[in-house]
Amino acid sequence: MELLKERIRRDGKIKAGNVLKVDSFLNHQMDVQLFAAIGREFKERFAGEQVNKILTIEASGIGIACVTAQSFGVPVVFAKKTQTKNIAGEVYTTQVESYTHGRVYDIIVSREFLGQGDKVLLIDDFLANGKALEGLARLVEDSGAELVGAGIVIEKGFQPGGEMLRAKGIRVESLAVVESMDEATGEIRFRGED
Amino acid sequence: MELLKERIRRDGKIKAGNVLKVDSFLNHQMDVQLFAAIGREFKERFAGEQVNKILTIEASGIGIACVTAQSFGVPVVFAKKTQTKNIAGEVYTTQVESYTHGRVYDIIVSREFLGQGDKVLLIDDFLANGKALEGLARLVEDSGAELVGAGIVIEKGFQPGGEMLRAKGIRVESLAVVESMDEATGEIRFRGED
Repeated sequence: MELLKERIRRDGKIKAGNVLKVDSFLNHQMDVQLFAAIGREFKERFAGEQVNKILTIEASGIGIACVTAQSFGVPVVFAKKTQTKNIAGEVYTTQVESYTHGRVYDIIVSREFLGQGDKVLLIDDFLANGKALEGLARLVEDSGAELVGAGIVIEKGFQPGGEMLRAKGIRVESLAVVESMDEATGEIRFRGED
Repeated sequence: MELLKERIRRDGKIKAGNVLKVDSFLNHQMDVQLFAAIGREFKERFAGEQVNKILTIEASGIGIACVTAQSFGVPVVFAKKTQTKNIAGEVYTTQVESYTHGRVYDIIVSREFLGQGDKVLLIDDFLANGKALEGLARLVEDSGAELVGAGIVIEKGFQPGGEMLRAKGIRVESLAVVESMDEATGEIRFRGED
């Protein structure tokens, strides 16, 4: 998606440790006009599929998922990272290892909102090691729902998540796959470019 | 907002301890078509204001804020609840007491995304004790931005948050104000009704 790649080149900041900061438009400040274009692109890529629910994970996936859901005309469910007293007792749960925070946490989805007959599209802002997506896919499997695929805004192609998920047979559509980044020069190379 | 009140009556569940569960359409599973109607209603109510940024707090405010932001044609910034290594070093920060979780946490917003010249609308799903909203208002004040007001989906009128914020001179527009709920009968009375 050219519009997105241009935006990453213009406003993304490369930091030590292979960190790509896109918090001016994607995951702290959020450009909802860009999100609308992203949503339409996901809808095009999954046009042949009967998606009836979008599943994401708090927090930064929620905005993209909600705007994307408008293109699909379906509701969003977001997996929560800790159990609160507001959640229903009956949940699907699994553990996820966080690369960003260096810890393991539980994610949960109420059984009321995911189950047999659902055709689920996963949406998230980033795919790096793929642990969060893998956890969401497990919740979908546990629920008896069908996993249609995953729509990712930015995939770090030099980290193993994308390959790991595709090897499991999951259809992953990433709108921008970063092959390499150079902290010194600020250069970003995307998959499919020379 | 009649559509919202009808939905709360139909799908909301009253639980012990004055808990109103609306997680089938508002804050776990999210009905983005309802969110679009909510966003248009906020835009009407704040039609005379030059809002250029919407501020919310993770996680459940983000979806409503993003869809509302499409009606306003402005970006969203969401306050984060803990510091991650992906956040810029320079942040505005304050402490918030959580009613739901029974603890105190820090919220942060990067200084890059809030400051003098901004006209900020706060958006959140719930207003009960008002601690989160009060924290967001402090961040806006600390940043030198102007606070236009707060758009709330559901206010618990029998808890002190709404009165406390209005007494501070903050314009609070709540789309449904619950005056009382009866766990035994399932009855909900909204402000403005007999």
